[in-house]
Amino acid sequence: MKFSVHVPATSANLGPGFDCMGIAIELFNEMRVETGHPFSVEITGESANLLPANEENAVVKTMRVLFERAGCADMDHEWRLSLQNNIPVASGLGSSASAIVGGLLLANALVEHAGRTPLTSRQLLDIAVELEGHPDNVAPALLGGASLSYMDEHGTHTFSVPVPADLCFVVAVPYFTLHTEKSRTVVPETVSRADAVFNIAQASRLTLALSTGNLDFLRGGFADRLHEPYRKSLVPGYEDVRHAAIRGGALTLTLSGAGPSLLAWCQDEGAAWQAADLMTLAWREHGVPCRAEVYRPYCRETVVHILSD
Amino acid sequence: MKFSVHVPATSANLGPGFDCMGIAIELFNEMRVETGHPFSVEITGESANLLPANEENAVVKTMRVLFERAGCADMDHEWRLSLQNNIPVASGLGSSASAIVGGLLLANALVEHAGRTPLTSRQLLDIAVELEGHPDNVAPALLGGASLSYMDEHGTHTFSVPVPADLCFVVAVPYFTLHTEKSRTVVPETVSRADAVFNIAQASRLTLALSTGNLDFLRGGFADRLHEPYRKSLVPGYEDVRHAAIRGGALTLTLSGAGPSLLAWCQDEGAAWQAADLMTLAWREHGVPCRAEVYRPYCRETVVHILSD
Repeated sequence: MKFSVHVPATSANLGPGFDCMGIAIELFNEMRVETGHPFSVEITGESANLLPANEENAVVKTMRVLFERAGCADMDHEWRLSLQNNIPVASGLGSSASAIVGGLLLANALVEHAGRTPLTSRQLLDIAVELEGHPDNVAPALLGGASLSYMDEHGTHTFSVPVPADLCFVVAVPYFTLHTEKSRTVVPETVSRADAVFNIAQASRLTLALSTGNLDFLRGGFADRLHEPYRKSLVPGYEDVRHAAIRGGALTLTLSGAGPSLLAWCQDEGAAWQAADLMTLAWREHGVPCRAEVYRPYCRETVVHILSD
Repeated sequence: MKFSVHVPATSANLGPGFDCMGIAIELFNEMRVETGHPFSVEITGESANLLPANEENAVVKTMRVLFERAGCADMDHEWRLSLQNNIPVASGLGSSASAIVGGLLLANALVEHAGRTPLTSRQLLDIAVELEGHPDNVAPALLGGASLSYMDEHGTHTFSVPVPADLCFVVAVPYFTLHTEKSRTVVPETVSRADAVFNIAQASRLTLALSTGNLDFLRGGFADRLHEPYRKSLVPGYEDVRHAAIRGGALTLTLSGAGPSLLAWCQDEGAAWQAADLMTLAWREHGVPCRAEVYRPYCRETVVHILSD
């Protein structure tokens, strides 16, 4: 039996939607599991040499958690896992969330295939949030499209936000890594009421633009005051790359997750490719090589495909 | 020549949309101006005896500002102003914004009637914001429906937020007044990042529910952490009235503006009237008489009508 799943990259925060919004994009890690083989892990693509190809692998560890939670810790673990990684690691594009989501979905498919009771989508989301620590990436990685999430005493609440058909992004990944922990510690624990109100308005404006499909509401650029002003100092050339994106025709630029990748928000692909070129040149001026590509949002639920019996 | 305008009451903040959101409701101050009479002001209705019926009247003062800004300070000021006030004063329902909006619109109509150049809608909004100090009430009072506004170095930005057809409110006005100044000073100048993020998510959720028309997104109640936790201590019985509203079928309860009026958000009028009764009883338990009525949002632009030549 062979199963495969394509888990999308995700960009969290979306500027003012700090710690509560995220969107899936059409860049995928492809994972495949095949039963009836001795346990093995094969990794190709992004950071293939740096990631553990054994029980320590994030996808494998997540699969083990799923088996336990589904009451299937006793299950036969004779399978071959193949990972084709296309999402850059530690770049703010949700590669860790993709490992969690992929591991959960593949293991759940194995549970179902073994005639046992698989977990529900809601249970999968809850475990993903628990493993990742926050819903911003795992929610859109599982559900597709844009998500708004928050946690309270009753657990995680996630809402799907519509995505306009003409929205596309430049995803610019610079060749240096920035550890989330460092990027988180620069964000202050308290904020002024004025900055909080500014972000409330900007996040609402973004939600309004996405759900009405009227991206013109974002003209003039939407902005964040809670995390980007602090984190951008960790990204050399940030301001110049931002200006380059706007000059190229982008509506605005947001830090993807905790960075260092940058997301330029565009209304048409022509402008996006132009922005991509200008961003690449701007970063090069700062001695930072980067890869800038244009992607559309990915708006379907992530599901496992059965490749063969 | 007789002109009239009906300016709606407005509720600002809408819980998590602190200092940036507001909505117009179908409760109006009716203002009428008639040329060819010696200057006079007649006030009937809410607080009629407390409001100045002379040049000090807020509507008259606003009209004088408009004449000046339109370059018409020299205009004939022989007119009779009649004000039928239905919006309670100093109750958090935008009575001050209604005076400003009504004054601007009536004076602008007089300017146009005199063959001079009236100001544009955009100019009227800018002057209204300047006079009121913030856009939260004047924007929906002028434009109708729900508004999202923020101010930056380029001025005021206002976006109309769609309003679902089934949304209605209980507006509960207690018989005591609470001065905005006092209610503002209790709100802290700084907030924790966690509370700011919570409000960002809740305001985005409210925007999503309004713009998609899916009020079910508000089930379980949306909430604020930036101002209501501090202001509610100035409203005796707040928690009990809130519980009464929810028991009656409301989605949630928000403080209207800086209070003391409370707004219960409902999905159908039957539930709203039930909530209104329970809220009245709950406040009575605290020795606070109140008036609770059910209103729909008012979703048309506020315009001047010509009554006769």
